[in-house]
Amino acid sequence: MTNFESNLKNFSNKFNSELPSYFPYPSGTEKQVSQAMYYSLSNGGKRLRPFLVCKIAELFGVDYQTSLPVAISLEMLHTYSLIHDDLPAMDNDDFRRGKPTCHKQFDEATAILAGDGLLTYAFEILANASNISAETKIKLISLLSQKAGAFNGMIAGQMLDLQTEKSPSLSNEEIIKHIEEMKTGCLIAYACQAGAILGNASKEEYDIITQYARNIGIAFQISDDILDVIGDSALMGKTLGKDALQDKLTFVSLYGLNEAKSIAQKLIDQAKTNISHFGTLTKDLCDLADFIISRNH
Amino acid sequence: MTNFESNLKNFSNKFNSELPSYFPYPSGTEKQVSQAMYYSLSNGGKRLRPFLVCKIAELFGVDYQTSLPVAISLEMLHTYSLIHDDLPAMDNDDFRRGKPTCHKQFDEATAILAGDGLLTYAFEILANASNISAETKIKLISLLSQKAGAFNGMIAGQMLDLQTEKSPSLSNEEIIKHIEEMKTGCLIAYACQAGAILGNASKEEYDIITQYARNIGIAFQISDDILDVIGDSALMGKTLGKDALQDKLTFVSLYGLNEAKSIAQKLIDQAKTNISHFGTLTKDLCDLADFIISRNH
Repeated sequence: MTNFESNLKNFSNKFNSELPSYFPYPSGTEKQVSQAMYYSLSNGGKRLRPFLVCKIAELFGVDYQTSLPVAISLEMLHTYSLIHDDLPAMDNDDFRRGKPTCHKQFDEATAILAGDGLLTYAFEILANASNISAETKIKLISLLSQKAGAFNGMIAGQMLDLQTEKSPSLSNEEIIKHIEEMKTGCLIAYACQAGAILGNASKEEYDIITQYARNIGIAFQISDDILDVIGDSALMGKTLGKDALQDKLTFVSLYGLNEAKSIAQKLIDQAKTNISHFGTLTKDLCDLADFIISRNH
Repeated sequence: MTNFESNLKNFSNKFNSELPSYFPYPSGTEKQVSQAMYYSLSNGGKRLRPFLVCKIAELFGVDYQTSLPVAISLEMLHTYSLIHDDLPAMDNDDFRRGKPTCHKQFDEATAILAGDGLLTYAFEILANASNISAETKIKLISLLSQKAGAFNGMIAGQMLDLQTEKSPSLSNEEIIKHIEEMKTGCLIAYACQAGAILGNASKEEYDIITQYARNIGIAFQISDDILDVIGDSALMGKTLGKDALQDKLTFVSLYGLNEAKSIAQKLIDQAKTNISHFGTLTKDLCDLADFIISRNH
């Protein structure tokens, strides 16, 4: 484990320890929905998005306790999107990070409601966050709803991803650009921009962080596409090779493995140049960029 | 058509005419999701929730243009809940207000995403509403997310409703109280309270409006249960008698038709007493209370 991986692990352990306090289980039978929400949320990945929120806010001197609810809110929103994407009518996945997906562990109705619940709770947590002004919270809510939304946000990306399985009508380059930017890139962009908003960044600083986010966001998706081809399914905790089976359009299917790797490397180099603007505090954010393409799960 | 029904019709026509401007269709194939959102939103009912928001805000001198985005946001959230409730894994309904439900008109994946999109857009519209202070918007977002949420809100009500079809463990009275309060009552409560928040109501005024909302909310659900037994399915635009077929617990199954009607009438009388506190401006809100139990669809 590298130093950075150990930092990330410490961060995610600390982050995970905060989650139970957000789930005061109600006493009635309806508690199944909050159990399902917590089941999926706590079956966490690397917590990259929360890490980005907190580390970028930190560049501007914002402390962890202040940025934490923003990070938790984002991870809830991300988890909702995974629960709904895994549903039989969508990607129809049985496993996520080595455990049964929400609808397999509970049932479809519960999984739909758990996703709805996490999406709704994400906004509640943002609205009720302490130590953040109402103006800043409104900026965060406005940005999150747009980035997660159906027009140019994550939902639009998922729709496009589902449709291209069937009937591509745009050029492949256009489609892949849209999907990558919207489906994966939007929440990574939000993570970084939320940190900048919390830190009251200047316009120039905000733009630099947006560039960094864009570069790591696309590289992250390319890396996911690559891992779907060459990854180890035991390490990944899910079925791999689905993209090829479903004839999905990905960076790998479009450019081939080597060219896809080379594109990702260039994006990561750019991202590190972007973030170096902020000086010595950015080591974690540079290491994160490297990690995105070096990870094996 | 009574005077009130004509007022309500005028309101909903005006309200409906505002909706297209909220749907700047994107150009890509992902537009299907926004088409599905608009399809369900524009297949509108009586727009009772928006009417409540605007009429209660009006009691405090808030103009229609200011309360409109709050009303639209709520109707989007209400529509998302209908789309998801109609899904095969939930209530499995093919028709809604005489037209195919969203998943029948499009497909299941699109319907799931359209619901997610409307829920997300509801918060975006609230966050971006004009002429409302950031503090007030945060109050609205906090309340909406709680009332629509998975802990004691609408999602908890839907979960309980689904579960009682299978295994009741609470007493019938407890279950029905929970379901009514959460599933239907929560958004009606929000509609009224949002109007009061927009109007900067005093604590006393807010509490009176909360009582009014609670009384009409439960009466509304009882009236729905009654219409499921004695209503005209052509007028209602959906299959009736499903509650009995599914052996669902409702006010009618628990108390019988006559007693259910009598309970609803008492609640409406109380609601009118509550709202009369605000004097002569409340005619529409009293008429609305009467309409809730006199309507035939």
